[in-house]
Amino acid sequence: MIARQMKIVALAVLLTGALTLQAQETEKNTISAIYQNALSSYESYSNLNELCMKAPGRLLGSPASKRAIQILKGQVGKQNPDTCYLQQYTTPSWRVNSPALAMVKVGSKKESLNVVNLGLSVSTPAEGITGEVLEVHTLSALDSLGSNVVKNKIVFFNRAMDNSKVTTFEQYGGAIDQRAGGASKAAQYGAVGVLVRSLSTEHYDFPHTGVSRYKDGVTKIPNISISTNDADKLSMLNKNNKNVKVWIKSDTETIDSTRTANLIAEIKGSRHPEKIILIGAHMDAWFNTPGAHDDGAGCEQMIDVFRIFKELNIKPENTIRLVLFMDEEMYQSGSKAYAALVGKEKKTHIVSIESDAGGLLPLGFGIDAGDSVINAIKKQAGQLVEYGIYNTSRGHGGTDIAPLKQFGIPLIGLMTNSQRYFEYHHSANDTVENVSRREMQLGTAAIASLVYLIDKNGIR
Amino acid sequence: MIARQMKIVALAVLLTGALTLQAQETEKNTISAIYQNALSSYESYSNLNELCMKAPGRLLGSPASKRAIQILKGQVGKQNPDTCYLQQYTTPSWRVNSPALAMVKVGSKKESLNVVNLGLSVSTPAEGITGEVLEVHTLSALDSLGSNVVKNKIVFFNRAMDNSKVTTFEQYGGAIDQRAGGASKAAQYGAVGVLVRSLSTEHYDFPHTGVSRYKDGVTKIPNISISTNDADKLSMLNKNNKNVKVWIKSDTETIDSTRTANLIAEIKGSRHPEKIILIGAHMDAWFNTPGAHDDGAGCEQMIDVFRIFKELNIKPENTIRLVLFMDEEMYQSGSKAYAALVGKEKKTHIVSIESDAGGLLPLGFGIDAGDSVINAIKKQAGQLVEYGIYNTSRGHGGTDIAPLKQFGIPLIGLMTNSQRYFEYHHSANDTVENVSRREMQLGTAAIASLVYLIDKNGIR
Repeated sequence: MIARQMKIVALAVLLTGALTLQAQETEKNTISAIYQNALSSYESYSNLNELCMKAPGRLLGSPASKRAIQILKGQVGKQNPDTCYLQQYTTPSWRVNSPALAMVKVGSKKESLNVVNLGLSVSTPAEGITGEVLEVHTLSALDSLGSNVVKNKIVFFNRAMDNSKVTTFEQYGGAIDQRAGGASKAAQYGAVGVLVRSLSTEHYDFPHTGVSRYKDGVTKIPNISISTNDADKLSMLNKNNKNVKVWIKSDTETIDSTRTANLIAEIKGSRHPEKIILIGAHMDAWFNTPGAHDDGAGCEQMIDVFRIFKELNIKPENTIRLVLFMDEEMYQSGSKAYAALVGKEKKTHIVSIESDAGGLLPLGFGIDAGDSVINAIKKQAGQLVEYGIYNTSRGHGGTDIAPLKQFGIPLIGLMTNSQRYFEYHHSANDTVENVSRREMQLGTAAIASLVYLIDKNGIR
Repeated sequence: MIARQMKIVALAVLLTGALTLQAQETEKNTISAIYQNALSSYESYSNLNELCMKAPGRLLGSPASKRAIQILKGQVGKQNPDTCYLQQYTTPSWRVNSPALAMVKVGSKKESLNVVNLGLSVSTPAEGITGEVLEVHTLSALDSLGSNVVKNKIVFFNRAMDNSKVTTFEQYGGAIDQRAGGASKAAQYGAVGVLVRSLSTEHYDFPHTGVSRYKDGVTKIPNISISTNDADKLSMLNKNNKNVKVWIKSDTETIDSTRTANLIAEIKGSRHPEKIILIGAHMDAWFNTPGAHDDGAGCEQMIDVFRIFKELNIKPENTIRLVLFMDEEMYQSGSKAYAALVGKEKKTHIVSIESDAGGLLPLGFGIDAGDSVINAIKKQAGQLVEYGIYNTSRGHGGTDIAPLKQFGIPLIGLMTNSQRYFEYHHSANDTVENVSRREMQLGTAAIASLVYLIDKNGIR
């Protein structure tokens, strides 16, 4: 190499080094500005309050879900996105016509129980169903007992979540078979109804709902959730007395065809408008809850990412697309409708990011993608460790973005402190009061920062 | 080296390796057992409830503080420690004879304000004090205004905590000068009283107390804290009206000599009973609060470490000494009395560990020690990362153990999620209801695990 060439190379190296340093400084400052902005702002928390006050119980197809779509569209509109529209679609639906009721009868004594309909459960006859209580702790226990014992009983699945586990999602996973599959198993042996202990880490009176499904071909029997306190009470009564009976009543309905929508909005990319960074959450919430953590907080966090980008004048090179999905809770019809759209569109999704773990202290991101993508994202999220984003690693993306995996799109999910989540989840206790504004905004800032970094640096 | 020697060395290496592997396995299993035990147990949370229900407002010298000592002694006694005794000592004290009152007067209209006495503040005359309101946001603002403006006023320090900061302790540090030093500064320029905006991250009606001090030689004027909501209201009234006056009334008393105590208990070390691993927290709480997070939770966590060691039959090689300090909040008299004892005892403290950051999600340990000790402890705490102990690094130990630094004893403090701490701190809102049992028990498990590891492996 001659001297002149060497000088040029040396200069280039110096310049690149300087640029890299400068770029790092810019990134650091922008992230700091994002956090300061998020923590100082009350708009998102106020939006959450509006959503939960005006549209609690916004289950797919409900009047509240229609209000929710309009409220959220209005909130998104205030951020002046480049586009904002509804992706309309048609789907079956399910609803509760009147809240489930239950009573325990010991001799001539009756006592009402705190219960709630489980999602997709069938009705009882108008007069309800009465049956002797058969308490079991596992589905397989019914296999051992057989039809002779199970027939005409109301089966009471009462296995508590395993409180010794550190991650509450692991506890949830270890107990959910009772809610999801208990009714089918009990019906197989002739049971007439099912009561399931609420999936909650707390001992209290709030019953928790959630989806329950029937296996093809089984008799569909009513499936109801009972609060943890009343599950303990019922269990005790049943142990200490003979012929303890329970009366349950449930009035629900499946609707063949409902018109509903996802909400989509975009900040167009300045350089690659056809490349998309998707940020999403779900609009719907169970019929019995304000749905503040699940997933009002997620929706408001994603809308707030738009607000922060606009206020800080961050102009993304790629398009930031906000998708607020309908119906995460029952059929995931919104995510399927969106995936169908992606299949038709000739646009690239760089990543999809979902927030559906509550507006709780964020601790990291779970990534569902190939190793090289995970490593690239981990490296970028390394800049957020000083903000408490300690744990970015292989993990769960999100239910709404899950179908995007078929297109090879990396899935990223915000991970939060799960310790209190199942005090709220799918219950009337999931209120705005139980969301800490600061914790929710730290989640918003983490997502906005990651979007900013991925937009700048890609994922390769 | 001859072949035989080589064989012996190789065998030794193999054996050491096997032992190390086995030791690692034992440690891993023990830590897992500690977490499972802590998360499954309700004893500590029930103890916390007993303490806060029976002895709220357990400030140094108060009847409640005497009850607290007996309650905690009873709770410790149940764990069958090898020793349990009170370290009696005498100290000055301070008390509130009746809760502070305040009213704002605009013309003929009067409205009461949510206020609380600040710690160590003097009384007003029995009829109270009335003065025009002078709102300022910094102490130095008074230097600019001077005596002409400040004289006979009630100075209202109304600088809010800076909500844009990620760590709430940083916000607290940035606003505390008003509470701690505002009265002395205002008195210098002839003010007759001081109102200080509560150090809270929330907008609500709970006033927060805390210690305030007078500089030597200044006139001691009454110093009162006002809730954030009422600070906003007072500020607005004062801006929109002329001659806004405030009336304040405070009845407090300094007591020359109070007899009180620290509570000390030990599990004796099986190999080195003269070497001590200290675990501590403070028994006292401000007069206006149940003191659940500050620091009832810390006391109960440390007692629960004893329960866990006993239940899991962990026999420490060194002595585990529990110290529940009196009077962290006002004079730190308990920590001084304990440090004096350490000076006399001819025993070695390996480390001292304090929990005084609330029963909130634990995130790490702060260490105040030399680099090599920090590195040794970081390495051991590395085993707790999978349990969410992400951040062990140089940091704050604790107020009660701080005087032990003079003896070269490493100070370690449990670090928790600080986001909600200043919703509770020093206010009536610091209730057991606001402590999550699971989060508190994760803290207990982290401390018990660290004690176990340090006992096994030392800190060199």
